[in-house]
Amino acid sequence: LHAATLGLELIGVPVGADRVEVDALQRLDADVLVLTPSHQWPTGAVLSAEARTAVVEWARARDAVIIEDDYDAEFRYDRAPIGAIHGLAPDRVAYAGTASKTLVPGFRLGWLVLPDALVEPFAAAKLVADRGSPVLDQLTFADFLRRGEFDRHLRRLRPVYRARRDALVAALAQRLGDLRPTGIAAGLHLVAWLPDDLDETEVVQAARAHGVAVAGIEPYRVAPATQGGLIFGYSSISESAIRRGIDLLAEAIAGLRSGGPSPRA
Amino acid sequence: LHAATLGLELIGVPVGADRVEVDALQRLDADVLVLTPSHQWPTGAVLSAEARTAVVEWARARDAVIIEDDYDAEFRYDRAPIGAIHGLAPDRVAYAGTASKTLVPGFRLGWLVLPDALVEPFAAAKLVADRGSPVLDQLTFADFLRRGEFDRHLRRLRPVYRARRDALVAALAQRLGDLRPTGIAAGLHLVAWLPDDLDETEVVQAARAHGVAVAGIEPYRVAPATQGGLIFGYSSISESAIRRGIDLLAEAIAGLRSGGPSPRA
Repeated sequence: LHAATLGLELIGVPVGADRVEVDALQRLDADVLVLTPSHQWPTGAVLSAEARTAVVEWARARDAVIIEDDYDAEFRYDRAPIGAIHGLAPDRVAYAGTASKTLVPGFRLGWLVLPDALVEPFAAAKLVADRGSPVLDQLTFADFLRRGEFDRHLRRLRPVYRARRDALVAALAQRLGDLRPTGIAAGLHLVAWLPDDLDETEVVQAARAHGVAVAGIEPYRVAPATQGGLIFGYSSISESAIRRGIDLLAEAIAGLRSGGPSPRA
Repeated sequence: LHAATLGLELIGVPVGADRVEVDALQRLDADVLVLTPSHQWPTGAVLSAEARTAVVEWARARDAVIIEDDYDAEFRYDRAPIGAIHGLAPDRVAYAGTASKTLVPGFRLGWLVLPDALVEPFAAAKLVADRGSPVLDQLTFADFLRRGEFDRHLRRLRPVYRARRDALVAALAQRLGDLRPTGIAAGLHLVAWLPDDLDETEVVQAARAHGVAVAGIEPYRVAPATQGGLIFGYSSISESAIRRGIDLLAEAIAGLRSGGPSPRA
């Protein structure tokens, strides 16, 4: 939608449960490839080392640019850090970071590390777009970084988010064992895939009727859905609220499965 | 340039020394008219009451929208306040204000008062453009407004800017009496028109060689130049620096007129 507004044509690349499909990439004819390699949005899939090499080769062969949107690489729980693709090909990759996930979305600051040839065009486009980001916010963030507060902030938050993720994964296993969570090793959300007997839209509506706001994955699909899934963001919800939410969601799904009307609808 | 980047066609409307030319407006075929009625950028011309009525009639007849960019209406020195065109036709006029002139350009906050029918489309466009302005900055500015500090700030600054304007006008009259200043009753800059024997580009270059940064009006013209002019911004320069700058500019212009090489070039 956003791409179309800008006059761009959007082409999807299939993403497996835990990988971008390299074969599909080989057939892709595009000028720009946007990736979220350390935690794919929304599935949480990690781009394998093999796929990282393949996308760089793809970009070189086609004189294309990779936009590496590293939107939530700062929060990892059960895996080693993964190097940025940018390091493999700094002349091909525009690396994008943001403070939206680590600090707060309302802060509105992000950054790009660009190939030399793109620095001037991007600076000119930024000037036309908004004449630059707020100066006080930039100075404040620079001070926060320089004094080491940003690193301390991340270290403080990592166990908080890990505990919320653990509570969510445990509650799902206990109450909704046939949902299959993926992308749980990092980030601030996970996707739980639905078994075939559950319709995504019906589950989202039944959850809402039980007072649980959970998003379906359908709006983020480029190709038609093959399997339903729910996106659970856990960054701003306490562990007890997470457990209560999954209890209510389990009630809603039980209602759907019993075929009766939703008890609270 | 900016308009062309956005795929829009730019059409100029002639602006007299102190008025928009209403006759030219009648022949104008456009969907949107952008005006800076309280202090035209860059000439400082004020849109007369007659012209205000005429632009509203023009917009109604053509089902067009007026964007009223009231970028520096807060600073007036020798004239009564002028009502916004928005008040004449709230259904036709998008009123735009900014904190860039009253506080600091790096603050990057502005606001729009829109006709009802444009609120939703503008909100959607803002979301696509940047997902909204920084929240902390908005809350800070709201608090500054609510506690009356913004009004106090304007009252404190008005005499400061007035003194700088007076110093500039006096220095021009004393050292460069054949330059004709306009737009001096309001705002934070003035335009001084050059007599026919002085070429704008040569004056700007000679001034630069004397250590004086002054902008020509040519880059802001839509139609070919008929007369040269210099834009003097005085908001961030002390009175003594203003006087020193005009002294140096007078030297530069004297050098041009004597036909010799610039003494410091």
